[in-house]
Order: sequence, then C-alpha cells, then structure tokens
Amino acid sequence: MEITILTVNNVWMMVCTALVFFMHLGFSFLEIGLTQKKNTVNILFKNFFVITAGLLMYALGGFNLMYPGFEEGSAGILKFAGFGITAPEGGMGFGYADGGYTWWTDFLFQGMFAATAATIVSGAVAGRIKLTSFMLFTILYVGLAYPIVGSWKWGGGFLDTMGFYDFAGSTLVHSVGGWGALVGIYLLGARIGKFDENGKPRVLPASNIPLAASGVLILWLGWFGFNGGSVLSADPTLTSLTLVTTCIAAAAGGISSAIFANILYKKYDLTMYMNGILGGLVGITAGADQMSPTDAVWIGLIAGIIIVLSVAFIDKLKLDDPVGAVSVHLICGIWGTLAVGIFGEIAGLGQFMIQLKSILIVAVFCIISAFIIFFTIKSTIGLRVEKEEEAKGLDLSEHGMQAYE
Amino acid sequence: MEITILTVNNVWMMVCTALVFFMHLGFSFLEIGLTQKKNTVNILFKNFFVITAGLLMYALGGFNLMYPGFEEGSAGILKFAGFGITAPEGGMGFGYADGGYTWWTDFLFQGMFAATAATIVSGAVAGRIKLTSFMLFTILYVGLAYPIVGSWKWGGGFLDTMGFYDFAGSTLVHSVGGWGALVGIYLLGARIGKFDENGKPRVLPASNIPLAASGVLILWLGWFGFNGGSVLSADPTLTSLTLVTTCIAAAAGGISSAIFANILYKKYDLTMYMNGILGGLVGITAGADQMSPTDAVWIGLIAGIIIVLSVAFIDKLKLDDPVGAVSVHLICGIWGTLAVGIFGEIAGLGQFMIQLKSILIVAVFCIISAFIIFFTIKSTIGLRVEKEEEAKGLDLSEHGMQAYE
Amino acid sequence: MEITILTVNNVWMMVCTALVFFMHLGFSFLEIGLTQKKNTVNILFKNFFVITAGLLMYALGGFNLMYPGFEEGSAGILKFAGFGITAPEGGMGFGYADGGYTWWTDFLFQGMFAATAATIVSGAVAGRIKLTSFMLFTILYVGLAYPIVGSWKWGGGFLDTMGFYDFAGSTLVHSVGGWGALVGIYLLGARIGKFDENGKPRVLPASNIPLAASGVLILWLGWFGFNGGSVLSADPTLTSLTLVTTCIAAAAGGISSAIFANILYKKYDLTMYMNGILGGLVGITAGADQMSPTDAVWIGLIAGIIIVLSVAFIDKLKLDDPVGAVSVHLICGIWGTLAVGIFGEIAGLGQFMIQLKSILIVAVFCIISAFIIFFTIKSTIGLRVEKEEEAKGLDLSEHGMQAYE
Repeated sequence: MEITILTVNNVWMMVCTALVFFMHLGFSFLEIGLTQKKNTVNILFKNFFVITAGLLMYALGGFNLMYPGFEEGSAGILKFAGFGITAPEGGMGFGYADGGYTWWTDFLFQGMFAATAATIVSGAVAGRIKLTSFMLFTILYVGLAYPIVGSWKWGGGFLDTMGFYDFAGSTLVHSVGGWGALVGIYLLGARIGKFDENGKPRVLPASNIPLAASGVLILWLGWFGFNGGSVLSADPTLTSLTLVTTCIAAAAGGISSAIFANILYKKYDLTMYMNGILGGLVGITAGADQMSPTDAVWIGLIAGIIIVLSVAFIDKLKLDDPVGAVSVHLICGIWGTLAVGIFGEIAGLGQFMIQLKSILIVAVFCIISAFIIFFTIKSTIGLRVEKEEEAKGLDLSEHGMQAYE
Repeated sequence: MEITILTVNNVWMMVCTALVFFMHLGFSFLEIGLTQKKNTVNILFKNFFVITAGLLMYALGGFNLMYPGFEEGSAGILKFAGFGITAPEGGMGFGYADGGYTWWTDFLFQGMFAATAATIVSGAVAGRIKLTSFMLFTILYVGLAYPIVGSWKWGGGFLDTMGFYDFAGSTLVHSVGGWGALVGIYLLGARIGKFDENGKPRVLPASNIPLAASGVLILWLGWFGFNGGSVLSADPTLTSLTLVTTCIAAAAGGISSAIFANILYKKYDLTMYMNGILGGLVGITAGADQMSPTDAVWIGLIAGIIIVLSVAFIDKLKLDDPVGAVSVHLICGIWGTLAVGIFGEIAGLGQFMIQLKSILIVAVFCIISAFIIFFTIKSTIGLRVEKEEEAKGLDLSEHGMQAYE
Repeated sequence: MEITILTVNNVWMMVCTALVFFMHLGFSFLEIGLTQKKNTVNILFKNFFVITAGLLMYALGGFNLMYPGFEEGSAGILKFAGFGITAPEGGMGFGYADGGYTWWTDFLFQGMFAATAATIVSGAVAGRIKLTSFMLFTILYVGLAYPIVGSWKWGGGFLDTMGFYDFAGSTLVHSVGGWGALVGIYLLGARIGKFDENGKPRVLPASNIPLAASGVLILWLGWFGFNGGSVLSADPTLTSLTLVTTCIAAAAGGISSAIFANILYKKYDLTMYMNGILGGLVGITAGADQMSPTDAVWIGLIAGIIIVLSVAFIDKLKLDDPVGAVSVHLICGIWGTLAVGIFGEIAGLGQFMIQLKSILIVAVFCIISAFIIFFTIKSTIGLRVEKEEEAKGLDLSEHGMQAYE
C-alpha cells in the first residue's frame, strides 16, 4: 500500500484511539453521577485502575493472546512482544497491520477497547465491592477472558470461521463486560436499602445528574472512534456510513426510550433517555457498517424499548445494577448482535442462527469465567465490604477521604 | 478527484463533525451552570431532545430541504432520501459531495449544525418554558425554518446568488437561533424574581460556574470543527488560517470583554469573560476564512465590547435571557456578518450592503416563523409553566427528580 | 513535498492543536478540584486569562522570538509578523513549515504550548496570589521567558547545537512552568492553615474530586496531541510509537504511585494515583519518540515513585503547592529529561551529561527571570492578597461572586 494512504489511515485510527480512550471519562462520569456521593472516590479509583492496569495487562500479554498472528513469516503480531520488545526488526517501526496502519496504533486502539470491558463491570458492582477484589477481577478478566473471547473472532478463530459478524463488539466487548457485570451483581447482592422489606425496589438518589448526562454525551463522542475506528482504515464510505448509522441509532434509542418511559410512567425520565441513547449505541455496534440509516432507526428504536423493559425486569429479579450496565451493555449487546441477522446487508435466517449460536457460546464462556473468578475471590479474600463500611460509604472506608468539600 | 485526497478531506470532516457534536455538551454545561440548580434536569432533557430529535428531523427531511440538489443527473443530494433510503445506487456508498468527501459525512456534519440552532433557543427560555412546548418548537424550527433559511445560501439559493457571504453561519446558524431566542423570551416573559418591583434586574444565582466555564472551553474546542469543517475540505492553508482567526478572535473577545466590564463595573467579571470569548467566536464565524490575524483581533475586540453593552441593554428592555444567548448568538452574529463587509479579503461598501440586506431578510423570516410557532403554541397548549411549578423548579414539576443528591 | 502528504500532516497537526488547547480545561478542572471551593471563580479567571492573553502575546511576538527564522530568503517564520500581518506574499497562504504543514498550524500549535507554561504556575500559587499580579507575571513569563528558552532548542539555538534532546518539552515546557511555580510559592508563602503551629502540613480539603479526576483524564487525552503533535508530521511510525509510549508511561506512573503510596500510607490514595499518571506523562515527554514500550514502563514506574517522595519533600520544605505542580511538572520534568540519557535510542553517559547541563542552564535562567518578575511585582503592587480576603476566599474578594448556588 502506498505511504500516503497508510498515513491517512493511521491518522484516522489514532484519532479514534484517542476518542475511545476518552470514553473512560464518560464511563466515570456516568457511574459517579448515577450513584451516591459517598462512593465517588472509590468509583474513580476503580476506573483509573481499569484504564492503567488494563493497558499494562494488554501490553504484557493480552494483545498477543487476542491476535495470535496471521501468516507464517509475516511481520505479524506475534513479533509484538509486549514489554519484552527492545528493538524490533527494522528499529521501532516494524511494519504495518493489514488495515494499513502501524502495529503500534493497532495495539493502542485494541488496548483501549480491552479496558472498556472491565469498566462496564465497575458500574454494576459500585457501592459494595471490595476494592482489592475488584482489582483482582479486572486483572484476570481483562488480561485473560476478554482477549481469549476476542481471539475467537477478531484473531481469526472459530467464531470467525463460522461466519459470525460483530463489527465493533456488541458481543465481543459489550456483552463480555455485561456478563461479567451480571455475575458480579448476582454474587454480590443488592446494596443496603435498594429493596424494601417487601422486596420492592427503591430509587437510591443519583448524586450528580449533570455529570451522568455529560458521561452519556462523552460516550457518544467516544463511539465515533469506537465504531468509526473499527473500520480499521479511513475508507471514506465505510467510516462515514458507520458514523451516520451510529448517531442515528443513538438518537432513535434515546427518543424511543423517553417516549416509552413516558407512556409507562407518565413522566419525562432523563435517566431512561440517557440509557436509551447508550442502548442505541450498543445496539448498532455489531452492524454499524452494514446498515442503512433506516435500519439504524429501527435498531435504535427497538433498543430504546428494550432498555425500559430490561431495567424494570432486572429490578424484578431483585438484582441491583446502579447504572443499568446489564440492560445497556448485555441486553442491548445481544439485541445488536441478533439485529445483524435481521437488518442490513447480510441479514437472513442463516446469519441470524450464527449470531445466536455465537452469543450463546460467548455467554457460556463469560459466565463460567466470571463466576470462577468472582467465586474464588468471594471464597478467599471476600467480595463485599462490611455493612458499616457500605453505610458510611467506600470513600471514607477504603480511601479515607471525601469527594466534595 | 484522487482517492487519497478524498480520504484526507473525509477524515478531517469527520473529525470536525465529532467536534461540532461535542458542542452540545458545551451548550448543556453553559446553560446548567448559569441557571439555577432546580432546573438542571429539565435543561439536560431539552438538550438531549434537541440533539436526538434534531438529527432525526434532519435525516427525515431537513437535509434534502436545505440542499435541494445541484446538477441534473448527478449523484446529488436529492437522491439522499433520508429514512427512505435502503439501497442507493452503487450500494451504501453513493458518490461524493462537491468538496471531496462523502454524502454521509456531509449529512452528519450539517445535521450537527442544524441541532445547534435550537440549542441556542433552549438556553434563553430556560427555567419557565413548558417542556412539551419547547419540544414542539424544536421540531418545527430545526425541521423547517433552519433548513429553509440555510438553503437560501448554502443550498445555492437567492442569498447566494446575491453575493451574500457567511462562511460558517454567523447569520445562518447563530442568528437563526438568536432570533428564535429573542421571540421566545419576549413571548414568555421574565422568570419570577428576575426584575424587582421597580423593574431593576436582579442577578439570579448561577448554580455551577465550573460547569459553565467548561462549557465555554468545550464550545471553543467545538469551534475548531464548526469553522474548520466549514472549509468543506482539508485544504491546508484555508483550514489552518481558519483555526488561527477563530482562536485569535475568541482570545481577543474574552480579553476586551473582561477589561471593558472591569472599567464599567469595577470587578473581574468571569461571566463577561466567558461571554466575550463566545462573542468573539460567533463574530469571526461569518468570515473566518477571509481574515488576517489582525482582522481577527479587531473583530474579537469589538465583539467583546458589544457583548457587555448588549447584556446591559437586554436587561434594560426587561427581557430575561439567563445565559446571554441573544447577546452572544444574535447580536454578535449580526456583528460578524457585517464584519465581512468591513475587514478581510472581500470587504467593501457593496459587500457591506449585501450583508446588511441578507441579515434583514433572514431576520424577517426568522422572527415571523418563530413568532407563528411560539404564538400558536401559546394559544393552544400554552408556553409557560404554572407559577408554583416555576418556583419549585422544573426538575421536580416536569421530571419528578432532582439533579443533585 | 507532495500536496496530499502535506494535507495529511496538516490535518494531524490541527487535531493535535485542538487536543493541546483542550488541556486548558484539564488544568482548570484539576486546579479547581484540588483546591477549596471559595477560590474557584478566581482559578477559572486565571486560566481564561492564561489561554487568551497567552495566545495574543504569542501572536504579538512570542512566536517570532521563539523561532527566529531558519534560512536567509526562505518563507521563514520571520515573515510571520504576528498582528502586523495583513497580506503576506502569496495571499493568506504563505508557504509551509519544514515539517510539511502550514505556518498557521505551526503558530497555533506552538501558541497552545506556550500558554501551558503559565497554567502550571497558576495551580501552584492558587488561593493567595493577587489576580493582577498573576496576570502581570503571565504576560511577562509567557511573552518573554518561555519563548526565549524555547528558542535555545526548538528555534535552533545553542542548546540544540550542544545536542540537547527534549522531544516535546519535559524541560522546555514543564520545567519552565515548574521553576516559575517553585519561585512563586517560595515568595508567596503558604496558604493560611496549611501548616499547623508546629509546622506540620495539614490537608486542606479538595473541593471537587470528580472534576480533579476528570482533569487528569482530559490532560492525558491532551497529551495525545502534546506528544503526538511534537513529531511535527503525521509520520505513521513515529506518531503511533509516541502515543504508545505516552499512554504506557501514564499507566505505569499511576500504578506505581498508587502502590507506593499504599505501602507508605496504608491507603488507596486517589490523589497520588492522579499525580502519578501526570508524572508519568511529564516523564515520557522528553523522549516519547525514542523509547520502546519497556523503556516507557520504567520511566513511568520511576516517575510514580518520584511523585510520592517529592510531594512529601515539598511539604517538608514548608512549601505550599496545592495541586502538586512542582512535583509533577518540575521534578518529573527533570526526571524525564535525564531519562533520555538512560533509556532509549540515544542513551549514554555523554547524552546524560548534555541533558543534565541543559537542565541546569534552563533552571538558572528560569529561576532568575521568575524571581525578577515576581520580586518586582512583590515590591511594587504586592503579590499576596490580604489575610481577610484569603480567608473569605478570592471569589468573593476579587470577583464578588460565588462558584456554586
């Protein structure tokens, strides 16, 4: 490939990498905003850990695990030896990835993705998980489980061979995080006070709605990179179509969620609006490059309705998910993955069945690995903080400080 | 055009689109920060509505209305059938817009612009407008009025033929929003307590200055895309000159506003500083590609002084504009449009008169359409919330929740 | 150079410019978040002044001072006459800088850098400096001291001839700011209440940890542009390697700081985590294009440990640095500059000595100029606000308003 187009591709991929990195601020703000003030420092600490440790784990081994090399003798990823690298062949520049950008860019873009999986879990388990236990989980889930699942499709593994389609990771990123979140909140139990004596859910106050809302807009911005960069080149038609479907699905998801919540609960529910936008974004992610704008509207509209139903259903199951992570990332991740079999260029019953089968395979693997990790932690150092610690907040008990003056 | 340069143009335009999208966070933070805590959720809801509904309206018809196609038989915009699109000729990729980037990018960039017009109104009418009434207004103003005016110039209409120059929309975006804001606050009346019994304006406390200030910096960042993308290509000289004049006008606007306010009011007024920066940005927008850095300094300095005078004048008229939207977007929008006839490459009396005439034409159209929409709403479902609702805040009365714990 | 590659370079440099601009929001949030609520408006005002006045000063003379032109007769920077410019030869587009992007882009990128130097000082002197005194200092330090030092290396001066290496400014930006901060807090003295009667440091409450933490993430994002843009082209290998080393050093700095603080103080200290990330970023800045990922890990890990020790040491010296600016920017800036002699492609005793010598030369110049400026101000209009003003907060005493409702 010619050097100028390589340079353009690389610029686009670096911009997208920066945007995906920035999603970590979006996740942080969303989690802080929707939970109680007393756990703010703790949530930020967890998010800082996810991005810093996640990136180091991915450099240490995750990247190689996920992309085990393509061709014999090529300047493939196997030669990216993580921290072991000192002077790769040809100096620091050691050739280009398939898409026409550097391996360095490829590593960083994928590394930013990897960290998101654990961030999704972070929101769901907020307010009651022990910090050290969460850090252990993050290291194992991001360092091993995520890249193993990813290699099955994006590393050229058996899901790829089977014909599974997951453009930017409705399943491979969002559901992987979502399954971890589901197992986590199941094993942890609900926060004190979340359900009353009759088991009816209570609304625990959100501490800072402006931060939560800005989290949603920052995440939407980040999705320009998350989906736009998943084209793996700056191909003008594919990248721009992807941005259009992404934004339209987000808009449709928000609108349908707000309207549907208004019909059910007779109020203009901002939290549902926010979750609807995120649900639309997760929903379009598996097929953002395959859809027309009209398809994107449908995928978003349905995601918005699913969100409202799912949040109510999770409550009914007496599961406590403070930020709606399971509804947004797992349920809409499943929806988006199936939608590739219903809408767009490769839709069809055959594709739908492949999508479904792949979802189930990933589900089994993620549930089992998350369960093993969480259960082992629970049986040893414990998963949940003491009641008094939870009551006074993790900021004071784990960090000895408060978030606000 | 050659594919590599098309790709570069497209990358730049996508980056700019993302930045313009991000301006919606800037507007949200600015509005929230400068108004009272009790209306925070309401303002966020309105802003979410503007961006989501605005984008869907623009896809449904606005884009086609604004760019009614250029050449017979070309792969023109008329063939972009909004949601009706399923499989355009040649698959999803259906040719390139004039500037050398895809129609998809063009649609999304312009769609993000469209939504800003309503956001400008949102800030001015904050704290007292009925939510449903505002949503109705948004749909009609963004869906119809904005693209109609836009088509007169950017769609190759009669203002364009006349020689009107408005690079990135001092008039076509900012004044269009500003006229809507002006009509809105005139018909709504002031917030309770804004003017005392003698009609003297009172300062209603701003709830969160850090958010407001960050809104200004985010908007400035967004203007890199708003003006930089209005070059409609990645032309190195034009794009970078545009960024230089944009930033210099912002800086000069802030400085002159702060100094002038200090002379008048004997204090270092941060709110004026902020408005001065925004005024400089709006002021340079009509001719950002036409000015030298020195011109940009003058345009900014004058905008900063205009802002201070205008804010006082709006108060004197007993109009209540909580965020200074009319002063920033309308008055500085007019100033910037006229400045194209005074400074820069095409300055001259002839051009000045064309600019003035165009401002008046747009004014008449916008005032009439905003008036018809707002007045019809007022006469039917009503425009303003009940006194008690306003007093306790729209967050509780319209949304049943509070923004902070 | 061919126009397409020029265009790509220019797009990348404009993106990086926007990101460096955005760092000013990061600095603002970091400073606000870590200091007391009562000085919030004041800090924002200072930051707005730094970016607006800094940019205008840089256009007025700083740019020409820093890059005094390279070749006789070339379309060199000497012809960029700042505000004097009206119609440069060949119209607004007046040729390309060496790296293959426009002079306009070069000016704006470097102008955004210049402003950061004063921002670093702003954080350190927060809560007690007179506003006018700070503004005077900013004008002189950003307008003169910064570009003079910069010219010694980046303008082709004697440090460059000597073989000094400072890729993106561990010394030329961060230490220059850091020395100014050190002199400032020495001459100002500590905030009331920072040290008890026995001289033991007290923790003054941080007003808003979420803003501080988001400041860190925004700064990290900005560093994509700060380091990535310092390649001065879109060279795929160099830019992407730079982003990888930058992010890995940030991650390693955060992790080592958090762990080391936990060992020393037995708690999970979020503030140290944040400073560790920033320390890693400053540390990698001098050699980000010279290091392997493994080198970056070491540089970051050591920076994280240095931060923890330095913060304690500054306290011991009874210097009051509310945001840790001296530790992050000066001490880690020195570390990063020396690290170029220890790790990476040009490491060696000779290089190490050159780095050391250059650090000392810059130190002498910066200490003397900051001292002269600050001392002259102190002897004339005074440096520090009155005790009562400090106690009630600068927001009320200097600005007559409060940051929160």
